[in-house]
Amino acid sequence: MPVLVMKFGGTSVANLDRIRRAAKRVGVEVAKGYDVIVIVSAMSGKTNEMVGWVNETSPLYDAREYDAVVSSGENVTAGLMALTLQEMDVPARSWQGWQVPLITNSAHSAARIEEIPTDNINAKFGEGMRVAVVAGFQGVSPEGRITTLGRGGSDTTAVAFAAAFDAERCDIYTDVDGVYTTDPRIADKARKLDKIAFEEMLELASLGAKVLQTRSVELAMRYNVKLRVLSSFEEQSDEAGTLVCAEEEIMESNVVNGIAYSRDEAKMTLISVADRPGIAASIFGSLSDAGVNVDMIIQNISEEGRTDMTFSCPTDQVARAEKAMAESKDSGEINFHDLVADIDVAKVSAVGIGMRSQSGVAAKMFKTLCDEGINIKVIATSEIKISVLIDRKYMELAVQSLHDAFELDKAA
Amino acid sequence: MPVLVMKFGGTSVANLDRIRRAAKRVGVEVAKGYDVIVIVSAMSGKTNEMVGWVNETSPLYDAREYDAVVSSGENVTAGLMALTLQEMDVPARSWQGWQVPLITNSAHSAARIEEIPTDNINAKFGEGMRVAVVAGFQGVSPEGRITTLGRGGSDTTAVAFAAAFDAERCDIYTDVDGVYTTDPRIADKARKLDKIAFEEMLELASLGAKVLQTRSVELAMRYNVKLRVLSSFEEQSDEAGTLVCAEEEIMESNVVNGIAYSRDEAKMTLISVADRPGIAASIFGSLSDAGVNVDMIIQNISEEGRTDMTFSCPTDQVARAEKAMAESKDSGEINFHDLVADIDVAKVSAVGIGMRSQSGVAAKMFKTLCDEGINIKVIATSEIKISVLIDRKYMELAVQSLHDAFELDKAA
Repeated sequence: MPVLVMKFGGTSVANLDRIRRAAKRVGVEVAKGYDVIVIVSAMSGKTNEMVGWVNETSPLYDAREYDAVVSSGENVTAGLMALTLQEMDVPARSWQGWQVPLITNSAHSAARIEEIPTDNINAKFGEGMRVAVVAGFQGVSPEGRITTLGRGGSDTTAVAFAAAFDAERCDIYTDVDGVYTTDPRIADKARKLDKIAFEEMLELASLGAKVLQTRSVELAMRYNVKLRVLSSFEEQSDEAGTLVCAEEEIMESNVVNGIAYSRDEAKMTLISVADRPGIAASIFGSLSDAGVNVDMIIQNISEEGRTDMTFSCPTDQVARAEKAMAESKDSGEINFHDLVADIDVAKVSAVGIGMRSQSGVAAKMFKTLCDEGINIKVIATSEIKISVLIDRKYMELAVQSLHDAFELDKAA
Repeated sequence: MPVLVMKFGGTSVANLDRIRRAAKRVGVEVAKGYDVIVIVSAMSGKTNEMVGWVNETSPLYDAREYDAVVSSGENVTAGLMALTLQEMDVPARSWQGWQVPLITNSAHSAARIEEIPTDNINAKFGEGMRVAVVAGFQGVSPEGRITTLGRGGSDTTAVAFAAAFDAERCDIYTDVDGVYTTDPRIADKARKLDKIAFEEMLELASLGAKVLQTRSVELAMRYNVKLRVLSSFEEQSDEAGTLVCAEEEIMESNVVNGIAYSRDEAKMTLISVADRPGIAASIFGSLSDAGVNVDMIIQNISEEGRTDMTFSCPTDQVARAEKAMAESKDSGEINFHDLVADIDVAKVSAVGIGMRSQSGVAAKMFKTLCDEGINIKVIATSEIKISVLIDRKYMELAVQSLHDAFELDKAA
């Protein structure tokens, strides 16, 4: 039988009523003849609660223990979903990551999936089970410790299962009815997109549009998984939501297709770094070893052998970055005067595959921000996006004015 | 190094402060030179919350999914405890049941421990780890599904680890400072016992004195594990709490050493059962298959080939018992007129190893209840206990008057 993957996020399984509602959606697909793999997140709020406990217990925590703690919410939802389906007479059982086993590398808290053997679950499908409910977000390392895939990792779990089981589609049920040109909570003119290219979704996801985890989109692109984002709170047709697909499948597109933002960025500046060949590798190697996800990097022109190095990272990794830099300074590996953290910044980005063939997008973006009196602190660009760091207090204003300037409320 | 097992119940790990407090106790023992195995329960309330969810989702639940759900609370506490110890510079790591692996049989929700391999944990002790934090209550079946040991199962986990690792002692930290002659919330004259015999503790535990899970005491008795119950809320000396030990180690004892009660009992009566050889085996076999824990059993004298059969079980298993009996009736295996459930009863018991050598205990018990106007519905006795089922509304009165009658406020 054809396989369908359905993923339900935290708000879609926030309580028993919502789990029942989600289970009914699963039942509809089972009735159509699909064998279904359901990937569930933890009930909304649960993972945050546990992350809070871990941070309070141990600010520089052992990531192996972090993973053991924060993965537990998904186990609860998986069991409850299986029970709910059984009550509806749909043969179902739950799998935790280590039971599949979903094997990852040992990069705790941000592990990468290495293998998903399909035999166990396929054997059960063969015995008449119709739904495999899998706890998202988690796996098991070669050492037999529990790993997690990073926040939002259940999306990646879903896409990886869709690829491994050659699923017809991977439906991501969430609390929004699709992908928007920007966050509707910030700009009320935000418009839902019917289709979006993998590349654009990738930039939006990595820039903080929290609809899909970045890696899930990468994975979908690599394995060409048909990915659909839709709401678990509305009755759904087969055309609902937003289809994330290859660029070729999209006929017309605006130059800019979305304005993304990320609120929890920090701008870190290493003042007066002793410049030498390989210094960047030393700095960012040591940050990477400490588990800091560096985003933007800027190096000023070197003067008299010393330079300033600026980078951005999530605010909750500032302590980690400071510790790593202090250790590198103490060990003599990196010589710098000071490390200054500016945690009151936000990132705003314009994204669109149309940028490739159209010039003037950056100029229009900078002028729009300038007209609003917003100072740009850092600029970074890629082929299909332009990002700026600005004071956090201007974030909403920046998103709204850019959305207006690029006329994103109008379809192409 | 000598091994100590320390178990912390739900109230002892109810929040991060209490986990820190418990970790400090562990630190004290580590400083004394012990390698410590810490067994943790879920934060208080968590398991109940999840049991509630399962029951609401599916009243006659698949016990395999129940176990997958309700075991998750212990994983959280185990990770948090390991992190807390690490913060105190005590080398520690967490183990979930399947990681040890604590192998059980496949009797989900009431699984029995079959094996605890010691190599994994001992290898880590050999590498300098000082504390193994193990999630209590859970194990893994030969089929690789998660099992749980029944409510209070963390006590059994603790004693089983103490036996497997040949621990010097197994300290059970809880919210009371020892074992009392009865529940101090019901009888304010209740007195703490310094020592209690395994057999007595066994009867008290099985009768609802919720200090220790019954099976943990059985296991401690079988492997002669030195078991101590003490409070996690007080500074403790090595002589604190109550020592549960072999009868020989207790010099003097009262005839009755404790009055226990169980509030959530149901009295079930099968009216007019067609009597035949093997009928009891049919009835109780089918109840056992359905996972009903039958306690007392009474059969009336058979008249004209039909008899009444009365048994008691926990109130939350009544639906299960009714379903099992209805199915046995439908299949023609058991012929009866009606099944009547009385869920407004409670069990009260007097326990003491002194009963073996002293007569008149039963008579004194019945007279005491009679003087208070309490009607006895069912009587059951063993070598060291007498139990009665009475209307639940008289439970507190019965406990108090029996405590007075047997002068349990005075030491032997």
